Amino acid sequence: MKVASRAYGILLQLLQNLGKVDRTLDDIFEEHLQNFNRQHQQATRLQKEFNNYIRCIRAVQTASKTLMEAITEVYESGWSGHDLLYVQAQNLEMLWQDFSHKLGDQVLIPLNTYTNQFPEVRKKIEKRGRKLVDYDSQRHSFQNLQSNAAKRRDDVKVTKGREQLEEAKRTYEVLNSELHDELPALYDSRVLFYVNNLQTLFSAEQLFHSESHKVYGELEAITDKLANECQRGSYSKKSIMNNISPAASPNATLNSHNGKPAEPTDTVQS
Amino acid sequence: MKVASRAYGILLQLLQNLGKVDRTLDDIFEEHLQNFNRQHQQATRLQKEFNNYIRCIRAVQTASKTLMEAITEVYESGWSGHDLLYVQAQNLEMLWQDFSHKLGDQVLIPLNTYTNQFPEVRKKIEKRGRKLVDYDSQRHSFQNLQSNAAKRRDDVKVTKGREQLEEAKRTYEVLNSELHDELPALYDSRVLFYVNNLQTLFSAEQLFHSESHKVYGELEAITDKLANECQRGSYSKKSIMNNISPAASPNATLNSHNGKPAEPTDTVQS
Repeated sequence: MKVASRAYGILLQLLQNLGKVDRTLDDIFEEHLQNFNRQHQQATRLQKEFNNYIRCIRAVQTASKTLMEAITEVYESGWSGHDLLYVQAQNLEMLWQDFSHKLGDQVLIPLNTYTNQFPEVRKKIEKRGRKLVDYDSQRHSFQNLQSNAAKRRDDVKVTKGREQLEEAKRTYEVLNSELHDELPALYDSRVLFYVNNLQTLFSAEQLFHSESHKVYGELEAITDKLANECQRGSYSKKSIMNNISPAASPNATLNSHNGKPAEPTDTVQS
Repeated sequence: MKVASRAYGILLQLLQNLGKVDRTLDDIFEEHLQNFNRQHQQATRLQKEFNNYIRCIRAVQTASKTLMEAITEVYESGWSGHDLLYVQAQNLEMLWQDFSHKLGDQVLIPLNTYTNQFPEVRKKIEKRGRKLVDYDSQRHSFQNLQSNAAKRRDDVKVTKGREQLEEAKRTYEVLNSELHDELPALYDSRVLFYVNNLQTLFSAEQLFHSESHKVYGELEAITDKLANECQRGSYSKKSIMNNISPAASPNATLNSHNGKPAEPTDTVQS
């Protein structure tokens, strides 16, 4: 009785320990899964937001181009710095081109590649789930078979059942083992991926803003110069009037200047 | 005959000279009109392009905000520089806010005010045209009246007709005179307006890009630091595994590390 009680105690402890390992391994997979889900969700969100961002950047790229074209049209060829303005508009266009190309090529494409991993892995997780169900059902049938066979000594059926069970176990275990490797590795990869991806993004932004800052500095200098010449009267009404009515008689020009243009119909009237 | 011929010659020359003044004054108005049309068309185009530009800028402003939110979510709180990244994301948001507000307030509103002048002036130009037609038709009726009255000595009708003609003439001449002042003044105003408007635009852009360049420099420094720590192994699989499965037994953790996790179903099977 004492021996049996002690043996029972050892068995109980053994089962508890085995149960603890079980629970812990399930916890680990559960945590892998939670990490995977969060990682997938975050990658998808970042991909969505970055796609939206790059779409808007491309829209500004086009809008900036047509705006600069309108400005170049408004900025008359006779005004100081017209050609310089055109050159800076071209520079700006190139900066936008470089920038949006870099965002697509060096940030979005790697982000897409990164995000595209998840559906494949998710399929594998789902397959593992199905194979676990298979395995459980095989184990259940085998247990029934075993207890029946014990009564009827039907060894052939038991052997065949054991083979099927072993097969289901192997299939599940291969998937399970692979996922126990792949999920943490995938999760782990996010740090380096985001570090590289964000470095590329921030460096492209930094360069773009730095260069744009210079171009707008040049554009400011051009308009500052025009403003100075404007204040000195180089673009006054008089000089413009002389430009637009070179054929006008001195009399007509004088009248226009006084704000009392000669009436064109006087001759007919008198 | 000689005197008459000479008088005719003088008259012809006088009429030609008067005609020349006429033609020149019409030319001047025609040039005012051409300038006005070009000025109006250019202002409208610039307004349209700038409206489009500011719409796109506001879209990037929002897109940048949500992108930075997604990045801040991806950038885990345990990673070096997480709080700094958040601060720079806030700075970036403020820069965009300032920039797009300035574009609307200091560039678009003045551009709208400038462009809104044109329809009123165009109405006045059209009114001048109608009043010129009135005047011409009054003059035509009066000429008929005069030649008829000369036969019938109908002085009252002639006096009344002359009054109507004078009225039509005055109405037209006031409008014509005002437009001969206003059109070149409006045309003249474009130089200073564009100088100021472009100065404001370019200076806002320059400031925005200069400040953004700094913020992205900070963001680059944050990710560079994380990259260094990454290379030193601070974010390796091991440290992450320790974080995510603190409850795991040494055995289970070891198995996971070896890529051969213990099968959770072994206990049931045996």
